[in-house]
Amino acid sequence: MTDSVLTEIDHVAIAVRDLEAAVAYYRDTYGVDVDHREVVESDGVEEALLKVADSYVQLLTPVRDDSPVAKYIEKRGEGIHHVAYRVKSCADALARVKAAGHKVIDEEPRPGSRGTTVAFVYPKTAFGTLIELVEE
Amino acid sequence: MTDSVLTEIDHVAIAVRDLEAAVAYYRDTYGVDVDHREVVESDGVEEALLKVADSYVQLLTPVRDDSPVAKYIEKRGEGIHHVAYRVKSCADALARVKAAGHKVIDEEPRPGSRGTTVAFVYPKTAFGTLIELVEE
Repeated sequence: MTDSVLTEIDHVAIAVRDLEAAVAYYRDTYGVDVDHREVVESDGVEEALLKVADSYVQLLTPVRDDSPVAKYIEKRGEGIHHVAYRVKSCADALARVKAAGHKVIDEEPRPGSRGTTVAFVYPKTAFGTLIELVEE
Repeated sequence: MTDSVLTEIDHVAIAVRDLEAAVAYYRDTYGVDVDHREVVESDGVEEALLKVADSYVQLLTPVRDDSPVAKYIEKRGEGIHHVAYRVKSCADALARVKAAGHKVIDEEPRPGSRGTTVAFVYPKTAFGTLIELVEE
């Protein structure tokens, strides 16, 4: 038995240039509709959340040129940007990542979209994966 | 109400160079342990599946140089390789993708790991995302 900190894949985030076209792709191809939309000014993105069971597909598009997601698309093209895991306590999970000797992007939990509390873990010590910890 | 074809995020696949090191990272940092391991000869990979709720993190490493995952790591580095959605019928979901006018990698469903039936959708018409459809 393990004592897992990760209670759910909260979302998989997909960086796209055209949010309306991406929403239409998921709706028309897979029958998945938008559950929530929000502009997250702090991250310079607009997001559309599509519900899949108890998880989300998060379609992300930059709303300004200096958004990290704009830079990501410029450098790597559209595609999967990060994976977010739901946790009971973002502060506890973040403390655990730091205690394990790994670098983090957010030293402290901060507000995310739809009223969540989030923190990002630095990808270079996480096998190239940008990981977000999400407390609902 | 929508008629969603996607019943669950089956897994998020992470391409890594050193499978043991990646397994140790997830175990030691997040307390998530290996649920299933398998060498998938057809894809030239070894995978470790870590259970998160009703989904998996799939750590993937190439077992030969001509594996698509080896080429992926060479070109883009380690990181998130694809996202897989669980579907009731892989054949029906694949037919729906084709009917919507999108290109697919697997024209017919084929065997995946742990006894599943799978098909991959071509990423260029899916906003840069390599999507796998998984029927358990």
